[in-house]
Amino acid sequence: MLDLGFIGLGVMGQPMAINLCTAGHRLSVYARKPTQSEALQSIGATVLESPHAVARAAEILFLNVSDDAALEAVLFSANGAASGLRADSIVVDMGTTSPAYTRQLALRLQQHNVHLIDAPVSGGQAGAIAGTLSIMAGGPEAAFQRVLPLFEIIGGGIVHVGDSGAGQIAKACNQIVVSAALLGVAEALTFARRQGVDAGKVRQALLGGSAYSKILEIHGQRMLDRNYQPGFKAKLHQKDLGIVLEEAQIAGMSLPGSALAAQMMCALVAAGDGELDSSALINVIQQLNGETP
Amino acid sequence: MLDLGFIGLGVMGQPMAINLCTAGHRLSVYARKPTQSEALQSIGATVLESPHAVARAAEILFLNVSDDAALEAVLFSANGAASGLRADSIVVDMGTTSPAYTRQLALRLQQHNVHLIDAPVSGGQAGAIAGTLSIMAGGPEAAFQRVLPLFEIIGGGIVHVGDSGAGQIAKACNQIVVSAALLGVAEALTFARRQGVDAGKVRQALLGGSAYSKILEIHGQRMLDRNYQPGFKAKLHQKDLGIVLEEAQIAGMSLPGSALAAQMMCALVAAGDGELDSSALINVIQQLNGETP
Repeated sequence: MLDLGFIGLGVMGQPMAINLCTAGHRLSVYARKPTQSEALQSIGATVLESPHAVARAAEILFLNVSDDAALEAVLFSANGAASGLRADSIVVDMGTTSPAYTRQLALRLQQHNVHLIDAPVSGGQAGAIAGTLSIMAGGPEAAFQRVLPLFEIIGGGIVHVGDSGAGQIAKACNQIVVSAALLGVAEALTFARRQGVDAGKVRQALLGGSAYSKILEIHGQRMLDRNYQPGFKAKLHQKDLGIVLEEAQIAGMSLPGSALAAQMMCALVAAGDGELDSSALINVIQQLNGETP
Repeated sequence: MLDLGFIGLGVMGQPMAINLCTAGHRLSVYARKPTQSEALQSIGATVLESPHAVARAAEILFLNVSDDAALEAVLFSANGAASGLRADSIVVDMGTTSPAYTRQLALRLQQHNVHLIDAPVSGGQAGAIAGTLSIMAGGPEAAFQRVLPLFEIIGGGIVHVGDSGAGQIAKACNQIVVSAALLGVAEALTFARRQGVDAGKVRQALLGGSAYSKILEIHGQRMLDRNYQPGFKAKLHQKDLGIVLEEAQIAGMSLPGSALAAQMMCALVAAGDGELDSSALINVIQQLNGETP
């Protein structure tokens, strides 16, 4: 049994924290909105008054906040977690953070003898609830090994990709692959429909061959059903593709497919649909072709 | 036992014809190059001297040639198949043909009381040999039902997508989805490598989550191994994306992702790599980024 902390009890964080708590660990949590911690309190987690207090109570502190700025605030603002962290403790960032910020954060925490593991996930809310998330981890091997038994509670496929930031690079790659797949499926289904062919049958036919992807199976069906309940919000996908292009810019790289997918995601958000599941990307393709989504 | 004909004994056609023959049907074949029919002759197929002769011998005639022009020649040139076709026979086009030509061909054959089923496939040479091809069929229901038991010999997932041309539309959709996936995987692996992260571990991490696709699994591994033995040749993928954009143009459609993927495939062919597997698309992304493939 370990003393764990969890901050960031949103759509993804809350089920992860619940899984850690029900596995028998002593869990302390902090939430800005009290409603977010009620479920955890009811299963025995300790609700504390600040990130600082949670950090003091934990040997391993999980963070799952929305972006670099939120992570900086949770750690380094007044009553932030950083000032409470114990020596030789581990911070596990489960959110999608920029690789550049992650590498810098690892160095800052190292100065206080605190280890950082970046561990963004894929698999959505369903995977978080079922404890089957795919986890892409970066950071020192020894710290990774200490966290691994906890990752096995919240995830299925766990890969230690490399040093600090490598998990975030893998997540960036994940978003590149997923957005390209969304664009391909959106164009294919729109093309089929315009040609007078049943798009559902096309999806069915394609699932059996080399076109198979989780995106075609799951998000393709969402597109057919026009069911854009998130899932994974378009505005977060847009943010993640922003990270990809920023890192590519820093590295002096050209990624034309990712740039196009990012622009399409921006168009979706610009149309006021940022809260929809990112499979609503097909709306942009339909609008380009004079169709009402 | 049926009287079947097969013309177009290439990389895909030959194993399909072998599977039909070994299933016990009487098979007649024609090949321009005598070496292409040797394997079939050795298992009992009858080798005839012209497409016309094969058509006369068959109640169901399978064609698997490279493009619209080759299909037109096999059917309508001197000694072509069309003049030999029996009334109420069926022509099954297993190749990737343009939907517009397919619809027109169906009408021309109908005038001779011959039915056309368009039935392009996905699954590559390995699927053709194993008899597990995914088959996307278009054409009249009664003709489809007559051919279905034969499709079950050469394929696994068989979907009757719709009327004449619907199979070719589904195949076009297949190529849209596959090329978008190839572009996404190529950019992701190039991005990972440039960031100093092990691209093989990134692929491994992504396989477990929503980024999973056959393309990431199979073609991603080919990219890591720099093994571009086809598989499916880049020049054929380029041809297929040409069909997609031509049909989109006719329909007045905008497909930005497909257009970009097509341009990338053109660049690969322009670099002299048209004979490589289309996963060599990563070479184009690497070259864009100043790397030697």
